[in-house]
Amino acid sequence: MSDPAAPDAAHYHAVRARTEALCRPLAIEDYGVQPMVDASPPKWHLAHTTWFFETFLLQPFAPGYRCYHSAFEHLFNSYYNGVGTPFPRPKRGALSRPTVEEVFAYRAHVDAAMRALLHREDAQVQSRIALGCQHEQQHQELIVTDVKANLGANPLKPAYRDAYAEDASLPVALAFHDVAGGIEEIGASGGFCFDNELPRHRLWLEDFAIANRLVTNAEYAEFIADGGYEKPALWLADGWAWRTRRAALAPMYWRREDGGWLEYRLDGESEPLDLAPVTHVSYFEADAFARWAGARLPTEAEWEVAAAAHPRAGVSARDALHPRAAVDNDLGQLFGDCWQWTSSAYGPYPGYRTLPGALGEYNGKFMSGQQVLRGGSCATPPGHARSSYRNFFYPKNRWQFTGIRLAKSVAA
Amino acid sequence: MSDPAAPDAAHYHAVRARTEALCRPLAIEDYGVQPMVDASPPKWHLAHTTWFFETFLLQPFAPGYRCYHSAFEHLFNSYYNGVGTPFPRPKRGALSRPTVEEVFAYRAHVDAAMRALLHREDAQVQSRIALGCQHEQQHQELIVTDVKANLGANPLKPAYRDAYAEDASLPVALAFHDVAGGIEEIGASGGFCFDNELPRHRLWLEDFAIANRLVTNAEYAEFIADGGYEKPALWLADGWAWRTRRAALAPMYWRREDGGWLEYRLDGESEPLDLAPVTHVSYFEADAFARWAGARLPTEAEWEVAAAAHPRAGVSARDALHPRAAVDNDLGQLFGDCWQWTSSAYGPYPGYRTLPGALGEYNGKFMSGQQVLRGGSCATPPGHARSSYRNFFYPKNRWQFTGIRLAKSVAA
Amino acid sequence: MSDPAAPDAAHYHAVRARTEALCRPLAIEDYGVQPMVDASPPKWHLAHTTWFFETFLLQPFAPGYRCYHSAFEHLFNSYYNGVGTPFPRPKRGALSRPTVEEVFAYRAHVDAAMRALLHREDAQVQSRIALGCQHEQQHQELIVTDVKANLGANPLKPAYRDAYAEDASLPVALAFHDVAGGIEEIGASGGFCFDNELPRHRLWLEDFAIANRLVTNAEYAEFIADGGYEKPALWLADGWAWRTRRAALAPMYWRREDGGWLEYRLDGESEPLDLAPVTHVSYFEADAFARWAGARLPTEAEWEVAAAAHPRAGVSARDALHPRAAVDNDLGQLFGDCWQWTSSAYGPYPGYRTLPGALGEYNGKFMSGQQVLRGGSCATPPGHARSSYRNFFYPKNRWQFTGIRLAKSVAA
Amino acid sequence: MSDPAAPDAAHYHAVRARTEALCRPLAIEDYGVQPMVDASPPKWHLAHTTWFFETFLLQPFAPGYRCYHSAFEHLFNSYYNGVGTPFPRPKRGALSRPTVEEVFAYRAHVDAAMRALLHREDAQVQSRIALGCQHEQQHQELIVTDVKANLGANPLKPAYRDAYAEDASLPVALAFHDVAGGIEEIGASGGFCFDNELPRHRLWLEDFAIANRLVTNAEYAEFIADGGYEKPALWLADGWAWRTRRAALAPMYWRREDGGWLEYRLDGESEPLDLAPVTHVSYFEADAFARWAGARLPTEAEWEVAAAAHPRAGVSARDALHPRAAVDNDLGQLFGDCWQWTSSAYGPYPGYRTLPGALGEYNGKFMSGQQVLRGGSCATPPGHARSSYRNFFYPKNRWQFTGIRLAKSVAA
Repeated sequence: MSDPAAPDAAHYHAVRARTEALCRPLAIEDYGVQPMVDASPPKWHLAHTTWFFETFLLQPFAPGYRCYHSAFEHLFNSYYNGVGTPFPRPKRGALSRPTVEEVFAYRAHVDAAMRALLHREDAQVQSRIALGCQHEQQHQELIVTDVKANLGANPLKPAYRDAYAEDASLPVALAFHDVAGGIEEIGASGGFCFDNELPRHRLWLEDFAIANRLVTNAEYAEFIADGGYEKPALWLADGWAWRTRRAALAPMYWRREDGGWLEYRLDGESEPLDLAPVTHVSYFEADAFARWAGARLPTEAEWEVAAAAHPRAGVSARDALHPRAAVDNDLGQLFGDCWQWTSSAYGPYPGYRTLPGALGEYNGKFMSGQQVLRGGSCATPPGHARSSYRNFFYPKNRWQFTGIRLAKSVAA
Repeated sequence: MSDPAAPDAAHYHAVRARTEALCRPLAIEDYGVQPMVDASPPKWHLAHTTWFFETFLLQPFAPGYRCYHSAFEHLFNSYYNGVGTPFPRPKRGALSRPTVEEVFAYRAHVDAAMRALLHREDAQVQSRIALGCQHEQQHQELIVTDVKANLGANPLKPAYRDAYAEDASLPVALAFHDVAGGIEEIGASGGFCFDNELPRHRLWLEDFAIANRLVTNAEYAEFIADGGYEKPALWLADGWAWRTRRAALAPMYWRREDGGWLEYRLDGESEPLDLAPVTHVSYFEADAFARWAGARLPTEAEWEVAAAAHPRAGVSARDALHPRAAVDNDLGQLFGDCWQWTSSAYGPYPGYRTLPGALGEYNGKFMSGQQVLRGGSCATPPGHARSSYRNFFYPKNRWQFTGIRLAKSVAA
Repeated sequence: MSDPAAPDAAHYHAVRARTEALCRPLAIEDYGVQPMVDASPPKWHLAHTTWFFETFLLQPFAPGYRCYHSAFEHLFNSYYNGVGTPFPRPKRGALSRPTVEEVFAYRAHVDAAMRALLHREDAQVQSRIALGCQHEQQHQELIVTDVKANLGANPLKPAYRDAYAEDASLPVALAFHDVAGGIEEIGASGGFCFDNELPRHRLWLEDFAIANRLVTNAEYAEFIADGGYEKPALWLADGWAWRTRRAALAPMYWRREDGGWLEYRLDGESEPLDLAPVTHVSYFEADAFARWAGARLPTEAEWEVAAAAHPRAGVSARDALHPRAAVDNDLGQLFGDCWQWTSSAYGPYPGYRTLPGALGEYNGKFMSGQQVLRGGSCATPPGHARSSYRNFFYPKNRWQFTGIRLAKSVAA
Repeated sequence: MSDPAAPDAAHYHAVRARTEALCRPLAIEDYGVQPMVDASPPKWHLAHTTWFFETFLLQPFAPGYRCYHSAFEHLFNSYYNGVGTPFPRPKRGALSRPTVEEVFAYRAHVDAAMRALLHREDAQVQSRIALGCQHEQQHQELIVTDVKANLGANPLKPAYRDAYAEDASLPVALAFHDVAGGIEEIGASGGFCFDNELPRHRLWLEDFAIANRLVTNAEYAEFIADGGYEKPALWLADGWAWRTRRAALAPMYWRREDGGWLEYRLDGESEPLDLAPVTHVSYFEADAFARWAGARLPTEAEWEVAAAAHPRAGVSARDALHPRAAVDNDLGQLFGDCWQWTSSAYGPYPGYRTLPGALGEYNGKFMSGQQVLRGGSCATPPGHARSSYRNFFYPKNRWQFTGIRLAKSVAA
């Protein structure tokens, strides 16, 4: 990251506390489940984020610091080969030990040791603390999505939170905002950012138009009803193969009952809300829907240029942990509802350089086979998202709060 | 089963209590883990054994009984297609709900409802209660082996029980007991038994000899040191394929460290005890060892005929939850140390008939591809084993306490 | 094998010539295809049977013999680890070289070199020649079944032979022949046999009854129409899993068209013949059918005892390369129509010993996980079958000419 | 494609004849082998290219044309769902019928029917004929690479062509050509092109430098010797997973022998030529090599801008069917040696539109998960390559003649 604004100690503690607060509604049993390879147990997130501070701050910078437990270096390493061999990812859910209590003790131990470092006037230390806090925020979002993957797959459909009232919103018509092309700049320009948002650089953009809001459940249900999942002509070849292999017929948390649809949300299972954005769709589904709708997905550059001109964050959905309906015709639902699939494959910006050492593995080594998502979601922590942020997942992934924003080319 | 001795109510409660006692050393987190497809979470065993009484006793025989929870019928059905579609076995470890507390409440509810039935003078009811108790005892053994599979695979190698002292035993030389052949009878002849032990029937047996004790760790280590795992000529074709696919080089809980072996036992990891029986070997390994040793495995008929003549149960190892060394030259270690692989494929006895209804799925439908094991192990509940008992597993399975007893043909 | 009757040189040449005659209807392209892992290309069979004589006769016994091609020792070794590392079985169909012409040249070279050995008066040499001829006859049967697997899977449904007329036979009612039990003997008692047919030994048999003929297509179609493939209660657990994984709904070469069935036979595709035996069924299907029919499959001992008393070979179908309808009420269709699944797992007879050296791998190492079939089929070469012959395949295999003979226990 | 220059009839016949000429060195047996899922049998290529003319020209435009064989529409459809269900790709090698002779007859039949259309003055017809010829040329390249995959995997290492002499070339030092950035244009600008090369469009390019020649075998061997395949820090995450899963240690056709390397080329197996370009590397290997070398791969735009300025095609290697060493310091080896991996994921150009109808499946539906390669190879037919040509394969693919050209960013 560049130009890190040194967080004060209070920020560190606030971030750490928020992670634990997110876990408060959980039963002990919920902490350990890995419902699929991609989704890690909450206990693992609690420990891994702590491991990050231990490995990249305490070990190199805290004189005399002794590791809390020698085996944790292996158990809670996610993917940093430069630090050692990570414990196999598909087996994270098979670790009943350490217990939840022991993991919280590990957190307390590291937090105590971090106190001395928080006030250290050393640019590298402060930069890494900032990175560690951002890193923990990313895992806060994963705790929400991974808990949802667990509870949503359970036939008992248990709720994580109390029921929330549906917005009494009026439909907002789909409209496209025209954006004039030319030489533009994208990439981070100040404040904290990850290495993959740099360097800020020029590019040429043709004129384009971008949708004012996300695609709704009602619109997506129409796509399904029109046979969208049965027409190979609408799908990418890899998408059609995915849909066939998975026998996918709807978004991840939808299922048929008595001729209608039910959707699992974090307050339980009920009918999809017509005006709420469709969420938990793969890139393949987003792309097929766009083709069916006579539109396309935006490139990440188009998205960023459009979003940068709209300072309104539109963080509407955070309390609900579910995306909310659009409220007006302005360019909205950018940051607080669903991550938005772009047509851009995830790759390096011109002149991109990774961080030195093992931290160089943070973002750079994933630059193949994945797709960029932009914006932020109802599970993204406050203050974490920004218009230059580049999220990335494989085209088939859909356990994140992913949604669809349409775009169009504008004939010259 | 035939001729069930109706258990008194005290027996029912004792069996139910013993299941819960076995779980007492567990952390909440340990209840939910499924370390491999074959090994179910303890929580699942607690619920499934309860489901058995609910499904086969309370629902058909307790007027007005209402199911504790409609979804449990699906969640805790193991493999009875006649009762409905079982929840997918590989996903048992992905169920954080119901919680452990809820499962214990389920047990209490069913136990309370069972009280009325325990004294019902109805042969079918009493027979099914007896079967339910035997069924629960089978799952008691599985709780031990499945907990071991969980803890033993954890890099922290946590202990389930306190350390126990090694026997100060003297080596017992391997010797073979001659048994004269002729027309013999095998099969259950009284007391409780499963359907697959019937009917008792005649067969012809050639003269044979059977080992006085189980193969020891020291003997097995010699087999390894002699390249036993590197010589295809010692192995069955399927065994060699298994060994190659798994890169198996030792029994399940053994691993190399600093040129020696460590073995995980339920009191933690340490060196294998030289005189203790080798355990957690597959049929393929048992068969290869026997060939290397110039012997063979006994047939199930040979085993039963030999064991039936030796009333001494030899239940030496139950307290330790690990097999104990042999103590003298008599035919020993029959029931309380390791299940003993036989060369007999699991199939029906002449005239075999399954139980009527869904209970017919209990034993009969597994009669292909599996191998019979005889005896009992250190994890078998007291009073559960008998000489006619037929345990069965796939040749590749080794997470049970399986061991090796050698036999030889005697030239006429 | 024991007591080999030394074949004369003419027999060797006749066997070798028959193999080549079986290939005569093939196009060059047909020689190389491996339609599934189990079914080898005809070219491979032609070369492997030749490799057998080269490896086990010429190399050890023909002074100064030089191998035809050093790479062939690897390429055409089937599974003899004692001789070297076999070429991977699933890749046999990926070898376009050596060409068919080169393989025939290899055969000619070995045949020429064998001439000197054919008259050698040496028991071991003559015994191995006998074994080599029997081995080649086994591969003659495989050439027929493997060619059928190739052509039958091709959407063009090409024929291997001219159309043959259906038998104008009258239906033969299913009847059961009673056989009295007692102490019986099974196993080979003279003439050539494989090691696994020895030693001839005593066993006790309860009274039983065995069907006069094989199950017909019409009877099997009734099983299908009655939902046989949809009722798990009829199936072994492994069988139901197989049927579900394969989505099997009928015998291997049957397919639905316009509400009826078509069956591929070696003269092309047409409707199944009502009175012909059903063939190409797995053990799981045979077992499920028997349960549906209120009967069971015979054990291999029952089959052998019944067949040994019926010298009539019943080799009716050899010309057609398809099983023929039964002709009368006597115990028939024993050897020349379909191999008959027995309920006996393939294992060693009491006192069984393998051949010395690499030839010990011929039969013994397959004694786990497979099921014994008895009799012979329309593809078995003349003179090859006998009542003590033990064929063996995995329960799921069905590309051989496998069929169903029912049996019943007789209440004492 | 746009603005198709109508080929004259002679061109059609020349293209068709060249396909057959490429097959002339093959044995009949070579026509049917599919050595891996990606590589189709030559027979299939011969038929599929014919199917293309039958499906997209004769059926819609030749009045009264009758299909040569109704089943061929299914058998030889590659991936056009709009035309019907394609025969499963992994089974192409299991089709011994139609025979080679029948496929040549199919070709002759279609060629005869095409004569009438070749002179038809209809823009759409002429445009499709042009496309069909280009399509067939693409399959000419695949015939070469697929035959190589077959013969190169055969332990006999048969040659497709006579041995050719190594170039007596002097080493050409690696040098980087600077290219100034700015607003540039890429995309096809005249002559035949595929839809994915359009529209020609503007983009902004930073200054960069591009290597004068491809990476050589000697340089790549140095990378291996330096432990390049053992250092995860050099690899993309997906690349490291690929390398681990495949146990890849060298380019596709290299293998160790006696401490050195052997490489299979179409004239047989021998030592890699030091100065020849390394070929048959995956994107993952190319990317790791570039990182090891302190450079990177070019983007497709960088490649095209650099190549467009260098009219010298450098088609040096076509006769050899193997890439040739560089000859001087100019920007060379662009089109006739190896396809060059770029760092650009394959996606649509701004304003991209697919062809109407089933032909829209030609290029567009593959725009996810694949990587763009630029240039051309020693197997690319004469006249087929151009600087705007976009080839695409999955990052793991390496059976094409793929190579490595390095690039660098130039600090402003």
